[in-house]
Amino acid sequence: MQPIRIGILGMGTVGGGTAKLLSENAQEITRRLGREVRISMAASHNTDRIRKLCPSDTVVSDDVFQVARSADVDIVVELIGGTDTAREVVLCAIENGKHVVTANKKLLAEYGNEIFALAAEKNVMVMFEAAVAGGIPIIKALREGLAANRIKSVAGIINGTSNFILSNMRSHGSPFAEVLKQAQELGYAEADPTFDIEGHDAAHKLSIMSALAFGTPINFQHCYLEGISKLESQDIRYAEELGYRIKLLGITRKTDEGIELRVHPTLVPECRLLAQVEGVMNAVLVQSNMVGETLYYGAGAGAAPTASAVVADIIDTARLMHAASEQRVPPLAFRCNEQLPVLPIDEITSSYYLRVSAQDKPGVVANIGRILAEQSISIEALLQKGVINHENAEIVILTHQSKEKHIKAAIAQIEALEHVFEPVMMLRMESLHG
Amino acid sequence: MQPIRIGILGMGTVGGGTAKLLSENAQEITRRLGREVRISMAASHNTDRIRKLCPSDTVVSDDVFQVARSADVDIVVELIGGTDTAREVVLCAIENGKHVVTANKKLLAEYGNEIFALAAEKNVMVMFEAAVAGGIPIIKALREGLAANRIKSVAGIINGTSNFILSNMRSHGSPFAEVLKQAQELGYAEADPTFDIEGHDAAHKLSIMSALAFGTPINFQHCYLEGISKLESQDIRYAEELGYRIKLLGITRKTDEGIELRVHPTLVPECRLLAQVEGVMNAVLVQSNMVGETLYYGAGAGAAPTASAVVADIIDTARLMHAASEQRVPPLAFRCNEQLPVLPIDEITSSYYLRVSAQDKPGVVANIGRILAEQSISIEALLQKGVINHENAEIVILTHQSKEKHIKAAIAQIEALEHVFEPVMMLRMESLHG
Repeated sequence: MQPIRIGILGMGTVGGGTAKLLSENAQEITRRLGREVRISMAASHNTDRIRKLCPSDTVVSDDVFQVARSADVDIVVELIGGTDTAREVVLCAIENGKHVVTANKKLLAEYGNEIFALAAEKNVMVMFEAAVAGGIPIIKALREGLAANRIKSVAGIINGTSNFILSNMRSHGSPFAEVLKQAQELGYAEADPTFDIEGHDAAHKLSIMSALAFGTPINFQHCYLEGISKLESQDIRYAEELGYRIKLLGITRKTDEGIELRVHPTLVPECRLLAQVEGVMNAVLVQSNMVGETLYYGAGAGAAPTASAVVADIIDTARLMHAASEQRVPPLAFRCNEQLPVLPIDEITSSYYLRVSAQDKPGVVANIGRILAEQSISIEALLQKGVINHENAEIVILTHQSKEKHIKAAIAQIEALEHVFEPVMMLRMESLHG
Repeated sequence: MQPIRIGILGMGTVGGGTAKLLSENAQEITRRLGREVRISMAASHNTDRIRKLCPSDTVVSDDVFQVARSADVDIVVELIGGTDTAREVVLCAIENGKHVVTANKKLLAEYGNEIFALAAEKNVMVMFEAAVAGGIPIIKALREGLAANRIKSVAGIINGTSNFILSNMRSHGSPFAEVLKQAQELGYAEADPTFDIEGHDAAHKLSIMSALAFGTPINFQHCYLEGISKLESQDIRYAEELGYRIKLLGITRKTDEGIELRVHPTLVPECRLLAQVEGVMNAVLVQSNMVGETLYYGAGAGAAPTASAVVADIIDTARLMHAASEQRVPPLAFRCNEQLPVLPIDEITSSYYLRVSAQDKPGVVANIGRILAEQSISIEALLQKGVINHENAEIVILTHQSKEKHIKAAIAQIEALEHVFEPVMMLRMESLHG
């Protein structure tokens, strides 16, 4: 059979990794697919890098649009990142009847609905396994492996930078700023780490998984997000004393009222596998109505793991390039989406961790207890810690489930108490059962 | 579009679960697939159960061959188990041009090569996600999700009964026989538990995964197996003191000399996720050359989890029923298999746990050390425990890597020592890295 002709856009870390993988594993890929995968064209502003990394017969270009329009390309592999050129060139490739494989979570989170609509019109495939959790085949699991289930929730550690920072804050007892610096030195965090540590990256990935899980359009614009930079060392420590670890989780859940879609630091019982995921590794836990819980773990980033997902998509696309649309899995798993409301964060239900800084005076705990009781919030655990010459105390409370608006009302009242002198630290807790 | 017409063979636990799933999740399945999945026929010796569990328009039969030959069936779903009738009826269905979905690991381990050959000849699909690790989509991960990788090894907890027993032996410090009895009372173990606790069931599943991982025919007949019934409580305890947990693992690994294919109780460092998998849950760890390690966790048995995998296969098959063979993933992942030798157990390389029961006399440890050194086996850790009025001792040794034949030669010499009065307990240890 004729080789599959791919055109790679972008020759950065992932582009280079993809070229390298296709060369190193060429023999096994051909044994699986029954035909060769050939890089017929590649475009990058760094054409030298293409010449260095791609086969000698690859047509080299500095114009991604040339590749997107080329008659010598079956599948366009978009690895330039960002949303400006990436969006334009992906739409251009689809207009020209090319199938698209992309690793670009931001592009899909922000423009996926537009891109998938055009792809349906033009009857081409858009594949994106690499966009979520790197090399873990979680998109395939959600779209195909769990297709017999009604999915109830998805909760994932889907940002390696944040997980590295949280793991090291716990294992070394170090403050956030120090571990961030270390992560930057190791290349696990960018010079401007905002995108990772404030949850934007996780929100992109979560929005994609949520659409796949529940059959909705992508709802990134409604995703609630809260990062890890606000965490203090003692929160990690208190959580641990109480049997929990703090993880930056992306959580999406279908309730009778609508979809929860939120990224925030979360206390997870330490006995749960998700709590044991350390360093830059990723993991996604899916709760479904038939199979129950399944978990998928692996490297969420890096050249080779991401290329692993990109090339798996190329292989899948190569098989079904000439298939009828009903023979393919729809990009967002369902043949027809239904728009479900995304719940405002105040309407979600969760358990909570509260840390109250107060002067160590009689009555403070009693007052806090009274305020929580008035909001019908019951207490699961309470820990009081003396700090600074025992004049001040930190009171840590774990609550049972409550609507977020009630916990916020309680917090406002606690902060107004006479001896409470700092804003209350509030974190969400998840048992991750169902 | 016309509904997909399935014929279910067998209406036991999994058959009933499949009928129930298809009814309960019908709406979501149709939304995904774009057409309805209809049970047009079902056969079981218990026809009343079919009438009770299947839709009223299902044609009821007590003859599985009638379903396998019926013109009203597109996909035959074999859920009768065993190998006699199952083999005959699956071959009959294929002969009649039916696609087959099966949950039957024993059938595939023993007759898969024959079945897949006939399926290729007749250009039909044979799908078997449910045959390994129940509801975990591990077959899909190995066949498709990791298709860009050269897979190096697969190690799995793939027998829930054994894992339940080992988990409870550890958490309650109970002896094997007592926990087995408890497992039987809870329905986690059969009246005759041999098939599960001696590793046969795990060997079936491992043989299938090994073929998928490395592109070989199924090599079940060469699988080495060793069960958990020989374990003593103190082995679990000593392992834990040394930072390990004992799991019944199925391990397959590609080496320069051939394929390792073995099921046995294994010490796993407790920091590894696989060590944290408790109770009846399953998990499979895959090491690949690009993505590195990925792990898949979930329920390995039960009506609903198994049905989840069966129906995912039905959906996949329904999509590609009329596709050309090159548009489908080959059943064993590769278009052409290559026979690689399966290494005899004596030729594998592993680390080892040895427990030596000896009289507490001077020189015993020195003699053991000398014997190991003569076989070029180095010691990672050594623990000596006094037992029975301090007259006898148990010496526990963890070794570094060695060929199994060398450790066995050393054990023979240790057992011949004057003060050693019991056979040496030997267990394998795996770091599970690569």
